Amino acid sequence: MKDVLDKEDFQVVKGGITYPKGIKATGVKCGMRFNRKDLALIYSEKVADAWGTFTTNKFKAAPLVVTEKNLSLSEGKLQAVLINSGIANACTGEKGLKDAWEMADYVSQGLKIKKEYVAVTSTGKIGEFLPLDKIKAGVEKAISCLDYAGGEKAAEAILTTDTKKKEIAVCFKLGEQEVKIGGMAKGSGMIHPNMATMLGFIASDIFIKREFLQEVLKQVVEKTFNMISVDGDTSTNDMVLLMANGLAGNKLIEKKDIDYYKFLNALQYVTEYLAKCIAKDGEGATKMMEVEVKNAVSFEEAKKVAKAVINSPLVKTAIFGKDPNWGRILAAVGYSGAEIVPDKVDLYLKEKVVENGQPLTFSRQKLHKYLEFSDEVKIIINLKMGEVNATAWGCDLTYDYVKINTKYS
Amino acid sequence: MKDVLDKEDFQVVKGGITYPKGIKATGVKCGMRFNRKDLALIYSEKVADAWGTFTTNKFKAAPLVVTEKNLSLSEGKLQAVLINSGIANACTGEKGLKDAWEMADYVSQGLKIKKEYVAVTSTGKIGEFLPLDKIKAGVEKAISCLDYAGGEKAAEAILTTDTKKKEIAVCFKLGEQEVKIGGMAKGSGMIHPNMATMLGFIASDIFIKREFLQEVLKQVVEKTFNMISVDGDTSTNDMVLLMANGLAGNKLIEKKDIDYYKFLNALQYVTEYLAKCIAKDGEGATKMMEVEVKNAVSFEEAKKVAKAVINSPLVKTAIFGKDPNWGRILAAVGYSGAEIVPDKVDLYLKEKVVENGQPLTFSRQKLHKYLEFSDEVKIIINLKMGEVNATAWGCDLTYDYVKINTKYS
Repeated sequence: MKDVLDKEDFQVVKGGITYPKGIKATGVKCGMRFNRKDLALIYSEKVADAWGTFTTNKFKAAPLVVTEKNLSLSEGKLQAVLINSGIANACTGEKGLKDAWEMADYVSQGLKIKKEYVAVTSTGKIGEFLPLDKIKAGVEKAISCLDYAGGEKAAEAILTTDTKKKEIAVCFKLGEQEVKIGGMAKGSGMIHPNMATMLGFIASDIFIKREFLQEVLKQVVEKTFNMISVDGDTSTNDMVLLMANGLAGNKLIEKKDIDYYKFLNALQYVTEYLAKCIAKDGEGATKMMEVEVKNAVSFEEAKKVAKAVINSPLVKTAIFGKDPNWGRILAAVGYSGAEIVPDKVDLYLKEKVVENGQPLTFSRQKLHKYLEFSDEVKIIINLKMGEVNATAWGCDLTYDYVKINTKYS
Repeated sequence: MKDVLDKEDFQVVKGGITYPKGIKATGVKCGMRFNRKDLALIYSEKVADAWGTFTTNKFKAAPLVVTEKNLSLSEGKLQAVLINSGIANACTGEKGLKDAWEMADYVSQGLKIKKEYVAVTSTGKIGEFLPLDKIKAGVEKAISCLDYAGGEKAAEAILTTDTKKKEIAVCFKLGEQEVKIGGMAKGSGMIHPNMATMLGFIASDIFIKREFLQEVLKQVVEKTFNMISVDGDTSTNDMVLLMANGLAGNKLIEKKDIDYYKFLNALQYVTEYLAKCIAKDGEGATKMMEVEVKNAVSFEEAKKVAKAVINSPLVKTAIFGKDPNWGRILAAVGYSGAEIVPDKVDLYLKEKVVENGQPLTFSRQKLHKYLEFSDEVKIIINLKMGEVNATAWGCDLTYDYVKINTKYS
């Protein structure tokens, strides 16, 4: 896999989840949230190969249990995904599980597809039960509205405290055939994915061996969705789904040839884009933070350092305050648990401010200006221990974060 | 060790670090901080046995290196401790280390005691150098002011963003002799001690085998200072020092008899009191949170759960917002990494709100009232997995936390 994404291998175009061939979607208001779309449906004309990653939180929400079970019953095939926002259906016990199965049934009956071809997921408040009557009516409405141009509506319907919809579409050529990928995501708070992430849905019309879907999804999720954090809280409902319906008509990808890597490359771009959208739209955020850790002994060690810095409330408040307080960054590096030698660490905050663990002379005023006028703040930490890099994304910690989360329920 | 502290075994009295026999202290203004005391000195007439615990942050501050070295050179004996606030002397490289040795020299020369009997420590901003001339003059002033009643001044001089001084004194009888313990601490932000903690200083006149000092300090620190968190940030300068000068005249404690446990018991009360003071005085805090985890399979597992809940920004903001949002608490339990069975978990927020992982019916309004009028919020989580308990202390996350840390440097 290329470490530097080569954009020439693919093109970013306008669109979202319905961009690939044979994918319809929509988003409707079913009445769970006041005057906002709260139910999204994605449908693939042709049964798609699929793979999912799910939260590691032990309180795994009921819909995730249903979706995992269906993926196993169908041996990795999906044709429809139903997503509601407003209520997470997490910590809801037996009844919650029954409700999630019920949701899936509405879709399978309405679309006349096999039960096990349906994935369901929910996002919103923990510990409340779903209003099944509203969902049932909502599913009927959604089915009647399914549209090849419905991606945007679906992307809107899955949002909660998000301020912006998050969608992307890319295409690339495999031989003479154009292959398309479309994706959408939601996430703004309770964001600290571990293994999986908030909600991410990616569809493609690529024709690829099913086993490869697992491999590529795992790889890109680890480097993108799993590298973002808004508040260090891992949700009960995190899920990323990748579907490929094979309608692009490309020659089946059945070995790791150049076509495989073209797909992987484009897919990583898609997930990185969506992951960064989530970091930027973190609850109350005014700035996105990107922390690049260089020359660690392993990805795991680099990740520990990047995650410690991106999660530090003291670093996050300093960035909000436009304060080049590099000491807080070094302190986070020091408690990250990673293998480091303090006397080797270089730190860049626009310019080099620490060399070999010791402060350099720099203009505090210039850096303050940089922080004041940058929407995206980049921190580079060179550990000089090995040759592996990792990048994490997050956001600053602001009054609005406190405000949003003080008044949530 | 008794799990429930039996207050009849000791008495809490007015006083602080200078309460034990033969301990003098003071706090003076040496000019590092504007019009505030910023230099504290503790002195024991008789050379004391001592033990310390130190931060696990890899960027360990220079004074900690000096203090550890001196404790090793003196084979665990101390006679004086110098503490400055304002500048942490962390991430200051070779010069910082030289400065820390210099600080210790001023004390040893001024008091005419062996160099290796001096401990030094600093707290404040990372990455700045100490103004040695001011410290030199300050040490002279402090030595001339040393006083058997100077504990309060010392407790004031070590504060940074703290809003209150933190000190305590207890006494208990061993045979006919009265034994005294006095302690003081500071800490308000960058509080997530690991192995050691912010700054805590405890003196006693007890006569006890030196090896026992290590054992009791380790034990009480693990259960008290290491169980608090304000922001999840482990400082570069955390340190707890325990000194015992033997002046109480009790029979030497050389085995783990009832006297040993009396001391341990009283010491745990002292450290728990100081730890809770720090949690209460967390930057911007309006409420202290106490999270008790019951019936875990081990202390480590109980600690993981307690720490995850106490550190969760979503739980902390909910408490600030007087919002009985128990779903966020369960989510934190679920991602804590501890061995749990979701269907077994009970949760109490004043009353039982979750039983066997599922919500009970409760009056949201009543709980809102409880949260509104309580300065101390207690959360109990019963895992029903084993027989070990742990308690952690922290505070809510407020607008003022963001304000304080946005404007720090």
